[in-house]
Amino acid sequence: MSYLKDDFLLNGKTAKYLYDTYAKDMPIFDYHCHLPEKQILENEEIQDIFEVWLKGDHYKWRLMRNYGVDEELITGSASNKEKFIAYCDCLGTAFGNPLYHWSQVELRDFFNCELEINKENAETIWDWCNDYIKLNHITPQSLIEKANVKVIFTTNEVFDDLTTFEKIKEKGYNFKVNPAFRADKIMNIEAEKYNEFVDILQGLTFDIKSLDDLEKAIVNRLEAFIKVGSTATDIAVESVYPVYDRADAEKVFKKRRQGEVISLQESEVFKGYFTYFLMKTYAKYDMSTELHVGAMRNNNNVMFKKLGLDTGYDSISDKNSIYLMSRLFDKLNDEGALPKTAVFNLNPKMNTEIMTLLGSFQSSEAKGKMQYGPAWWFLDNKEGMEQHLVDLTRLGHLATFIGMLTDSRSLLSYPRHHYFRRILCNFLGDKIDKGEMTSNLELVGKVIKDICYDNAITYFKVK
Amino acid sequence: MSYLKDDFLLNGKTAKYLYDTYAKDMPIFDYHCHLPEKQILENEEIQDIFEVWLKGDHYKWRLMRNYGVDEELITGSASNKEKFIAYCDCLGTAFGNPLYHWSQVELRDFFNCELEINKENAETIWDWCNDYIKLNHITPQSLIEKANVKVIFTTNEVFDDLTTFEKIKEKGYNFKVNPAFRADKIMNIEAEKYNEFVDILQGLTFDIKSLDDLEKAIVNRLEAFIKVGSTATDIAVESVYPVYDRADAEKVFKKRRQGEVISLQESEVFKGYFTYFLMKTYAKYDMSTELHVGAMRNNNNVMFKKLGLDTGYDSISDKNSIYLMSRLFDKLNDEGALPKTAVFNLNPKMNTEIMTLLGSFQSSEAKGKMQYGPAWWFLDNKEGMEQHLVDLTRLGHLATFIGMLTDSRSLLSYPRHHYFRRILCNFLGDKIDKGEMTSNLELVGKVIKDICYDNAITYFKVK
Amino acid sequence: MSYLKDDFLLNGKTAKYLYDTYAKDMPIFDYHCHLPEKQILENEEIQDIFEVWLKGDHYKWRLMRNYGVDEELITGSASNKEKFIAYCDCLGTAFGNPLYHWSQVELRDFFNCELEINKENAETIWDWCNDYIKLNHITPQSLIEKANVKVIFTTNEVFDDLTTFEKIKEKGYNFKVNPAFRADKIMNIEAEKYNEFVDILQGLTFDIKSLDDLEKAIVNRLEAFIKVGSTATDIAVESVYPVYDRADAEKVFKKRRQGEVISLQESEVFKGYFTYFLMKTYAKYDMSTELHVGAMRNNNNVMFKKLGLDTGYDSISDKNSIYLMSRLFDKLNDEGALPKTAVFNLNPKMNTEIMTLLGSFQSSEAKGKMQYGPAWWFLDNKEGMEQHLVDLTRLGHLATFIGMLTDSRSLLSYPRHHYFRRILCNFLGDKIDKGEMTSNLELVGKVIKDICYDNAITYFKVK
Repeated sequence: MSYLKDDFLLNGKTAKYLYDTYAKDMPIFDYHCHLPEKQILENEEIQDIFEVWLKGDHYKWRLMRNYGVDEELITGSASNKEKFIAYCDCLGTAFGNPLYHWSQVELRDFFNCELEINKENAETIWDWCNDYIKLNHITPQSLIEKANVKVIFTTNEVFDDLTTFEKIKEKGYNFKVNPAFRADKIMNIEAEKYNEFVDILQGLTFDIKSLDDLEKAIVNRLEAFIKVGSTATDIAVESVYPVYDRADAEKVFKKRRQGEVISLQESEVFKGYFTYFLMKTYAKYDMSTELHVGAMRNNNNVMFKKLGLDTGYDSISDKNSIYLMSRLFDKLNDEGALPKTAVFNLNPKMNTEIMTLLGSFQSSEAKGKMQYGPAWWFLDNKEGMEQHLVDLTRLGHLATFIGMLTDSRSLLSYPRHHYFRRILCNFLGDKIDKGEMTSNLELVGKVIKDICYDNAITYFKVK
Repeated sequence: MSYLKDDFLLNGKTAKYLYDTYAKDMPIFDYHCHLPEKQILENEEIQDIFEVWLKGDHYKWRLMRNYGVDEELITGSASNKEKFIAYCDCLGTAFGNPLYHWSQVELRDFFNCELEINKENAETIWDWCNDYIKLNHITPQSLIEKANVKVIFTTNEVFDDLTTFEKIKEKGYNFKVNPAFRADKIMNIEAEKYNEFVDILQGLTFDIKSLDDLEKAIVNRLEAFIKVGSTATDIAVESVYPVYDRADAEKVFKKRRQGEVISLQESEVFKGYFTYFLMKTYAKYDMSTELHVGAMRNNNNVMFKKLGLDTGYDSISDKNSIYLMSRLFDKLNDEGALPKTAVFNLNPKMNTEIMTLLGSFQSSEAKGKMQYGPAWWFLDNKEGMEQHLVDLTRLGHLATFIGMLTDSRSLLSYPRHHYFRRILCNFLGDKIDKGEMTSNLELVGKVIKDICYDNAITYFKVK
Repeated sequence: MSYLKDDFLLNGKTAKYLYDTYAKDMPIFDYHCHLPEKQILENEEIQDIFEVWLKGDHYKWRLMRNYGVDEELITGSASNKEKFIAYCDCLGTAFGNPLYHWSQVELRDFFNCELEINKENAETIWDWCNDYIKLNHITPQSLIEKANVKVIFTTNEVFDDLTTFEKIKEKGYNFKVNPAFRADKIMNIEAEKYNEFVDILQGLTFDIKSLDDLEKAIVNRLEAFIKVGSTATDIAVESVYPVYDRADAEKVFKKRRQGEVISLQESEVFKGYFTYFLMKTYAKYDMSTELHVGAMRNNNNVMFKKLGLDTGYDSISDKNSIYLMSRLFDKLNDEGALPKTAVFNLNPKMNTEIMTLLGSFQSSEAKGKMQYGPAWWFLDNKEGMEQHLVDLTRLGHLATFIGMLTDSRSLLSYPRHHYFRRILCNFLGDKIDKGEMTSNLELVGKVIKDICYDNAITYFKVK
């Protein structure tokens, strides 16, 4: 039996009471993830534990590389079982790593497997889980419903096929799937395939020759997203750029559209203007913006050429500028066009800068109009969440927080919501036990339920 | 009854013993605040709880905006009582925010009100406090004396009227009020009203046409401040500038004095030189310097136009440079002109940089000549203070610390000194209980008393 | 009797069991220090406690300056005993400072002295320790062997005399002493004495007129180091530079070699290329690289002129760039020439940036090929180590960690290894007690032993 007990992460009776009474049974709204909506629609039975637990999970690959595991056993041609065993071996001593907890919880919650993950137990776990999968005919639907998920926002490019979402609605699932609107491929003008992406967008709308055409096409697609239920948008940049003039951005766009190569500076001009345009448009349509900043991507060129994007070679950037973020928000606000915005910051050294900046743009438009997004990616771990709660409570207002997400490509990540909920309840339970806040547990419980689910439902206008 | 108990923030008997025995009864020396000295002189009775508790407190406004409260109920035309109730509602669930503690302690310590602040109790608290105020004829003097305050340093511009301080002396209060000398309005050469400010200074001294005149006027006023008891000075900059040549600064000053607009770069040239000049002068007169760095002000232009400065729209800057701070201190030190300096840093990511830099300029001129100022503004909260103590103890010498201040515009902020003292006693008590330091409590108690009061008295040469 | 007990830093039975069972008796491998190898060879008896405990220890000097002690009593002409007493007085209230712990542990472990260090006990401690020293004929050898040290890597310039290491081998000590290869004096091309240093290198090898000659001379010396057992190298820079072209570096080198002064930019060109050249060469010879970044040195010019380098006037720099570090590692990796690298970062705000970057360059070449070096210098304290463990475990794989070092000039610093081991065992024991990891103590114990000694032995290929 593994170390996981009922009071996991809950130190004290108050914390346990809060979790059991207010958090445990709340449904899940995963307002930002990377699940492929087609997988949810097709709903095919899972084949083995490797497929759903290890395949495609670059968090796990990274840990294995750190442990000195051969790439053959990670992304190479070794068998599913060999890879599974190599991961179990590696994980057995990864004390303190979030995967050490997540992996153990996932096996318990979805496959009823309580064996401690390590080298010795690896083969038994492999058999157990695969037997369980065969016996129970596990599907994406069954995994999502078991986790009590009610709403999922997938992340979709402007040109993604929206009929999938309509078809999902017809399936009678116990949960909703809506797309979040993302125009990153239309923003990243320096990319080799940029014109191909604009061409796809063009195919769905109309000829795109000028910046004006482009903006209209974006609006056109945004309206299409809204029709299928979208209420959120997403922007991912390493750092916030200055807001450049539209005329300059137009020049860069035309040059690029003619197939020319543009400079780093030119691409910044375009992206600086375009971020502003997007957010302004999102405000107009009352769409929330999830702004992701602080990732430095594809550090390792050898492996990028071998494996491509999102394979475990990214890291935390120091490029973001609080001054430019201030200027962007202020310009939008000045024009009455600052949308509800959740900032997902990957560099913890900027926590207090960003938290206090957000505090300068709050207003009665919404409880917590400007959100400090939850601990994310490299910060999505116990200490990251605890630090997030410390910064959020001391510099903001806890009760307005929209809570956790998974940001995941995996169907097994929902327990991370409960991982966060336990940490939240422990954070509050500890303060209550120490006499640092009210012992009116009903009042506290209302706040917990709001953070678990209700605040996000209101914030993202989910009906 | 609220959650506040006698052992608030004191986890363990040793911590409680230390606080009760050594900290509780020590007087308060508030060596940096923004109280208007005229209010202390005039000493008029307080009208209602709103006036003294909410009005003008931008910390509280910010929290309300975060909670989505309408500006009407914050700075607008709603009644005092409506605003009070809106704040109580907002505060009731602001768990972990320093205001959650401060507000509760203030009502208890000054108005004998022990009801927990929340929506439900708001009206009762409103009545209770207002009755108490009427019954007890609360004045600035009574509030300050009740808090056992012995010395207050207000923050005054070079041209402020110093007779107020002489008149306060004649009032026979149980505490001293001295001005700290601040030349920020004479430093900030880019400000629209800059020449008006210099003109006021000119009116108090002599014609100011050259930099030489300006410097002499500054010295003239500094001597006037010293005559009324001033021993401290204050400088607030977003970041430390390079020390530019006097000749270049002179050119910029003359240009500005002739009413011309100057560039950002020119203003930096002047301010870089002028910071150096001020600190050098302060050293000559053995005046301590409180150097505030790291605030990015007035982010929100819409609200700036509506409400002006210091209304809750500032945030933490990342602009400060440890290299330039090193060069400034080193140049002054090289010339035998580095004053006793307390650095108040608002960006916690620079804590260790600044702490270790200060360690490079300590000397036998004073115990803790270079001070790492206490957790301040956005850091003035439990975790900020705990982090400050961690950084101070591991990188400096705790026993030399000059302790807490309020930095406040409010007469009710003195309990923050005790908030800090409890955290200090808890920090030490915990180490004692864990066997990480001496259990000679008398030795520890002496250090606590020094930090509470005695070190600051010595450092700032208060007689 | 002092506050030091058997369970010092071990809160709980599990932590104590782990330390006693797995960590306490493991030998020490000090893979980075600044001990003079000649002192170890000559092995002369220690004269008094001042000589071995205070003399030359700039950590202690710094603390004394902070406390306002006169320089006469620090580095001046006061007697050894007077200096000793001044330090004891200063230390008595330096609660929370690492020296407060280290000093007390050193007196106990090496001189059997358990009196609490403070002003009152100073004279008794002075007598006790000096009696102990006389009675027991303390030597470098006896101190090192008492501490159960098995391997020491000293830090040596390319031109250091390697016969010392051969002679040490003949002494029959119970421990090995190997040099780590350091080319900093050949790298720092802006230094006044640069050409003298190159001349010394030239004297040991051959004429050095071109960059080509220089590179060959470096390789020649590296091979000589390898012959006497060296398996590690060391680079110390304030920040990582861009990798400049060899042709440009060649120009700068030739100019400098002709005795000309070079600009800051030129020196960066040379150092940027040369760092790359060194690491590439180290990879070729399978030598690990210890890369030290983040110190801003010699802030205080007055004291630099008086006392020189390494006298307590350094601080933490903010100049390092994660982007440039990424580019350097990627270029080397692209050429199959990234050596095993341990990054020692002095600025804690960069912890997560560097940790995640290292995670992008792990591979099956070694368990933990890219190491996040332990908490170092200003971070070598309880909180620094705890933060290091948090960042290491959540962003890396604990079981691959090569553990602690002293980085010390003092023969008494070895207890710092046990200071770290206690913190490590407490970190894990706490997680076990809280149910956050396996309670299979044998599995945990193996990891502890690996971190204490075995991982470093494998990583640095010590036979």
